[in-house]
Amino acid sequence: MSKEVKDVQKLENQQQLKWVGKSVKRIDGPAKVTGEQKYKTDFNYPNMVWGKVLRARYPFAKIKGIDTSKAEAHPDAVCVLTHKDIPGFNGFGIVTPDQPVLCEDVVRCTGDAVALVAAESLEAAEEAINLIEVDYEPLEPVTDAEAAMIQGAPQLHPDGNIHSHVTIVNGDIDKGFEEADFIFENTFYSPRQMHAFIETEGGWGKLEEDGSLTIQCPAQYGHRDKLQIARALALNPERIHVYSSPNGGGFGGKDEITVQIYLALLAQNTDGRPVKIHLSREESVIAGIKRHPFKVTVKTGAKKDGTLIANKVRAVADTGAYASLGGAVTALAIEHASGPYKIPNVDMEGFCVYTNNGIAGAFRGFGVNQVCVGIETHIDMLAEKTGLDPIEIRKKNAYLQGDRSSLGHVVSSSVGTIETLMEAEECDLWVNRELYKSQVSEPWKKRGVAAATSFHGVGMGIGTPDYGAATIELLKDGRFKVGVAIEEIGTGNGTVYAQVAAECLRCEVDNIAVIQGDTKETLDSGTISASRSTYTGGRAIATAAPNMITLLTEAAAEILNVSKSEIELADNKLIVAGDESQSVNYKQIYEKLYEQHRSMRVEGHFYLPREKKELKNSGGAPHHLYGYMTHVVMVEVDTLTGETDVLHVVAIPDVGKVLNPQGLEGQSEGGAVMGIGYTLYEDILIEEGYHKTKNFTDYIIPTIRETPIIETIPVESNEKSGPFGAKGIAEVVMIPIIPAIMAAIHDATGARINHLPATPERIYKAIQETKKQTLVSR
Amino acid sequence: MSKEVKDVQKLENQQQLKWVGKSVKRIDGPAKVTGEQKYKTDFNYPNMVWGKVLRARYPFAKIKGIDTSKAEAHPDAVCVLTHKDIPGFNGFGIVTPDQPVLCEDVVRCTGDAVALVAAESLEAAEEAINLIEVDYEPLEPVTDAEAAMIQGAPQLHPDGNIHSHVTIVNGDIDKGFEEADFIFENTFYSPRQMHAFIETEGGWGKLEEDGSLTIQCPAQYGHRDKLQIARALALNPERIHVYSSPNGGGFGGKDEITVQIYLALLAQNTDGRPVKIHLSREESVIAGIKRHPFKVTVKTGAKKDGTLIANKVRAVADTGAYASLGGAVTALAIEHASGPYKIPNVDMEGFCVYTNNGIAGAFRGFGVNQVCVGIETHIDMLAEKTGLDPIEIRKKNAYLQGDRSSLGHVVSSSVGTIETLMEAEECDLWVNRELYKSQVSEPWKKRGVAAATSFHGVGMGIGTPDYGAATIELLKDGRFKVGVAIEEIGTGNGTVYAQVAAECLRCEVDNIAVIQGDTKETLDSGTISASRSTYTGGRAIATAAPNMITLLTEAAAEILNVSKSEIELADNKLIVAGDESQSVNYKQIYEKLYEQHRSMRVEGHFYLPREKKELKNSGGAPHHLYGYMTHVVMVEVDTLTGETDVLHVVAIPDVGKVLNPQGLEGQSEGGAVMGIGYTLYEDILIEEGYHKTKNFTDYIIPTIRETPIIETIPVESNEKSGPFGAKGIAEVVMIPIIPAIMAAIHDATGARINHLPATPERIYKAIQETKKQTLVSR
Repeated sequence: MSKEVKDVQKLENQQQLKWVGKSVKRIDGPAKVTGEQKYKTDFNYPNMVWGKVLRARYPFAKIKGIDTSKAEAHPDAVCVLTHKDIPGFNGFGIVTPDQPVLCEDVVRCTGDAVALVAAESLEAAEEAINLIEVDYEPLEPVTDAEAAMIQGAPQLHPDGNIHSHVTIVNGDIDKGFEEADFIFENTFYSPRQMHAFIETEGGWGKLEEDGSLTIQCPAQYGHRDKLQIARALALNPERIHVYSSPNGGGFGGKDEITVQIYLALLAQNTDGRPVKIHLSREESVIAGIKRHPFKVTVKTGAKKDGTLIANKVRAVADTGAYASLGGAVTALAIEHASGPYKIPNVDMEGFCVYTNNGIAGAFRGFGVNQVCVGIETHIDMLAEKTGLDPIEIRKKNAYLQGDRSSLGHVVSSSVGTIETLMEAEECDLWVNRELYKSQVSEPWKKRGVAAATSFHGVGMGIGTPDYGAATIELLKDGRFKVGVAIEEIGTGNGTVYAQVAAECLRCEVDNIAVIQGDTKETLDSGTISASRSTYTGGRAIATAAPNMITLLTEAAAEILNVSKSEIELADNKLIVAGDESQSVNYKQIYEKLYEQHRSMRVEGHFYLPREKKELKNSGGAPHHLYGYMTHVVMVEVDTLTGETDVLHVVAIPDVGKVLNPQGLEGQSEGGAVMGIGYTLYEDILIEEGYHKTKNFTDYIIPTIRETPIIETIPVESNEKSGPFGAKGIAEVVMIPIIPAIMAAIHDATGARINHLPATPERIYKAIQETKKQTLVSR
Repeated sequence: MSKEVKDVQKLENQQQLKWVGKSVKRIDGPAKVTGEQKYKTDFNYPNMVWGKVLRARYPFAKIKGIDTSKAEAHPDAVCVLTHKDIPGFNGFGIVTPDQPVLCEDVVRCTGDAVALVAAESLEAAEEAINLIEVDYEPLEPVTDAEAAMIQGAPQLHPDGNIHSHVTIVNGDIDKGFEEADFIFENTFYSPRQMHAFIETEGGWGKLEEDGSLTIQCPAQYGHRDKLQIARALALNPERIHVYSSPNGGGFGGKDEITVQIYLALLAQNTDGRPVKIHLSREESVIAGIKRHPFKVTVKTGAKKDGTLIANKVRAVADTGAYASLGGAVTALAIEHASGPYKIPNVDMEGFCVYTNNGIAGAFRGFGVNQVCVGIETHIDMLAEKTGLDPIEIRKKNAYLQGDRSSLGHVVSSSVGTIETLMEAEECDLWVNRELYKSQVSEPWKKRGVAAATSFHGVGMGIGTPDYGAATIELLKDGRFKVGVAIEEIGTGNGTVYAQVAAECLRCEVDNIAVIQGDTKETLDSGTISASRSTYTGGRAIATAAPNMITLLTEAAAEILNVSKSEIELADNKLIVAGDESQSVNYKQIYEKLYEQHRSMRVEGHFYLPREKKELKNSGGAPHHLYGYMTHVVMVEVDTLTGETDVLHVVAIPDVGKVLNPQGLEGQSEGGAVMGIGYTLYEDILIEEGYHKTKNFTDYIIPTIRETPIIETIPVESNEKSGPFGAKGIAEVVMIPIIPAIMAAIHDATGARINHLPATPERIYKAIQETKKQTLVSR
């Protein structure tokens, strides 16, 4: 190990840090809060043309012919393209390329693209699109995932409607239920949530004079998009440059290809003029991916003393017309379906199924949201039944570092479940919950307080490449350019990257220029998803830093005419050890290296640690690393209308070392609000394959008025593999709040809602039902 | 278009060329003929370890357990690896990654890899490999491709035994046969040919100190190998460097992954020591890919006047245990199965089927060898039946540029079939064939002369990315480094690259340093296969050249203090137009650019032109461009033994412009000899899944003693898209010779051999059979 590597490791272990652990202001904060920040879709160029996508008229239909002649004759049309104009492979999809770029013989959802137009104005593009005549033969749509699985159902794809089937079995489930004193079995339904990013899908394409292709598009993995574009256009990927950052929100919704391939196809047919596509909110709702609705049946067995002994799960995920990441979402759901516990007997399976209901894909939480409600609700039922404390039951069953999880593997990474539960037990909201519950605003309103806990894997899991890479370049003015491909999608990862770099290089945060989401300037560093960006990008920078220090040291030694071993890194300069008067700053070093024609760019690479042995047929479980979290919430239910407010949230994450407390709070608050929306309000309704909910008039997300007090109390642990001890956070922050709200509604009213969102109607009905049952049981 | 681009175009069109079209000596010739050339597998390093692969004991068996403990205990073992040690995806395969890197639960052929060992010596590695205990449950092997297709056959892969099914239908086949005066129907069987390269599969792996991985391995597409390694090892491809040139022979056999992933896995477990694998000939026979044996049934209908009117083809290809490029081979076979003719009614289908017979993949000719025999034999039968001249029939049916082919598409690229046939009609061997035939060496020997024609697509066809890229860098000494990733596999493409570069830059060939097969130094330029390397790499260089000339011109203008427009490219220097006394050479330009810290490397990119519309379900047909060729051959058959010698070959290729006549002759002669071996001698026999033919003791290839006089008479055309008018040649050179030899045997003896290779036994039996029939018909 080189001296420089050791120096950086020492830095990481020290208590006194200058930047890491501080609420350094977001480097992109001022531009964002003032509205100065321009996103890709905010730009317009002289000489530009507008692109537009023709979507399918039916959710499921054969295409018998496409006539573009009238559209082509439109005076302001620049080009009209169909599947015939795709030079390469007519398909895309992160795992299975089952989605046509432009449909040829069949459409499978109303978001399907059939043709493209570029025109002189957006209006002309819309006119021309409407002039394309498609001869359809409508088919009966497949609208129910469970029905789609049955033999004889109409087949959406050649290999059938079951895209994937994952199973995880551990122990002996039958024996487990035999030994159980209590068994709970319930079925849970979850909504088709929309990512609701502020910037809908869109961007720019341009064929450059040298024949290369530039795509500017908010996206979550520009390096992978490049390969998907290359395959469809039969282009050398080296000739495609994707600029994918910043995003006006991602949340998983821009992980899959959105408009990149359309832009590339159009750009090749507009004589070098830049072409822009920007989806309307309605088009984004219909054509963009959504969260997978699940039907999850959970059967949990427990002993009288609160020990969980058996858990059986069967989950069916509706991925809509195309797989996208549906297989991976289903797999992650099954991996997490028994919670962060050590249940000795589990039998869990998940199906990812094609239907004609839009398209589902990646979304913050990635399947865990849908399954955590089962085990957590059953623990609360067990507490009710046995009179045990619900947090105590969780603590009793939670695995510790070194224990075997429900999956049967020994968890070797840091585990904070119990610490977060202890913090929950001690928080004011929990300790004084009876007092707070009594302070209702109206006599017909009821309050409830409840806690729940969950976890979320960090990174890709076994079998999928998972790596980070960073570059550091010394600039002419003595600053450093830090390149990490992982995009800014609203999380503030760029600020953390600057903090880590400044700490490792002992310079000011202001002297770090971060560059993200640029396939030309940055190395492939994987996707911005799976709660991996701080952990992965941060570690890659901390790995690159010693290489830069080596370079700086060599140059300083030459300038000061001493041996390299005498040089020492100090704040913003290098000195001769013990003699601060002999020093060089980074600008002087740049000049020396420039004179010598030396490269001033270094790289750092990081591979995420992973478990050795994959569980068979599990789709990649287990993960090496998880983030853990407990939420405590208080709700107030209007028993006359069912309307429910979340009044107070205590969020207790275990994210390893907190690199930027304000950044963590931002994630925690955003996640809590998204969890509230998921639990109480949000659902894209689709009937017979047609969207009933198309925009924010019908689709209700929480606003600042629905945002409660949110306290974030991190439990810090030290994850050795992470930069300065950090893990991931972005997804788990929206997970335990879901069962916590469900339990709090029960605490307030006695009613349990297993069909989310828990709308006023559903809550009102459940209250009435509970009242009836109470009357009967008297 | 820039002035420099125009200048290079003018160069390409001029008659007086300095390098192109000349028999420039192969730049690697002296090293190769003296034996000085070292291939990757010739090297040894201090501190090296040897790697060895454990192959499957059975052609089809379940694996119930693998015990490596005894192997690990071997005192000289460095590491022992199984499927458990694969960090990423346990599979590879160019199109479908269906082949496990290391088998986990099942083996499907005796070439399957089950475990890897690295040890201090080759002997120790072999000992350790033999200490690994694998618990197998043998299964009944699937040995016949047609039987494997039938429902109820044991399934080798989850989606069944039919890997792919392609169809091409044009016109109305039933009507065609109704209108035919003659119908011929025959079934043809083809052998499992071995590539028989001088360098068997092998190479080196090394984990570098910076954590990157170096693989040195003879291969045909290093940039793609990098991605396959990355997927299996879950590595960032940017951290893998593949050095894949030169090869001691390729012929398609090194297009698929051979040992690259094994080397990478071992290298990660040998503490940075380099690890070498080099397959013995026996292991290469058993584990390496071979040519697909086909069963092809062809039914051809023709009119009395010689017009071909209908052709029906059903081909079944045995791809063995894994797909590799089997789907593409089958598709190309079907695309070419009606020859370079304009048959109005065709119905052709091909199946690529899994069995337990080794593994088949890419091989020079790529499926066309197996199908050309059908249509060509039927044309000869038609000639016999009608008394028409067989060459006249071919000319009558051949399509011209602008005609519709049998596939139904209009052929827009250059077509040389008729020119090659006219050349055949006029060659001495054909004109004086009766004289030559009478000059037999013994009275019981019979001679025959026959001609056949065929064609072969250039490049990948529709739907597969197909591009070239080249770099040109000015070196300190004033020479140019030309980088093209496409490997040297014996074809001499590097010499042609140097010729094209020297011509475009007006320097000496000796001043060009060509670098190939290095993923670090060169841009992805596609695979060395599909007769694409001269065409693609040459065009990429001709596209890069103007960019270099621009750079040179700018520097020269500065040095000479004149405007850029006054500078002119002259031989080995730049001058002020009209005043040769004012000049700068390339070394001076280097110095100027170095001083200015300017990049001295330029790029050129080229995309192969392609047809607009893919035929449905055809796997990528049609190609935009084909090479055409006619062979005339004379054979002598010993009627007492069936032994057959090819005495004389006239090879008449249409390859566009010939860039290097001696290079073309080399390809033509090598191809003819390989075609002779295919037709008369070569076949890897497999019985019940076990190889009966294991090395050159049993597997007979032609030597110099079996090599006839081969005359090459190129018909030059000008293919606009190619560099200086060139097309591709590498595959078609071995194709028409196959049916030509078959027809010549018939001409000599009256016997037709439809089951290749035409061994003495088969020929002898066929002669006896022919005699019997002649007696009966008397």
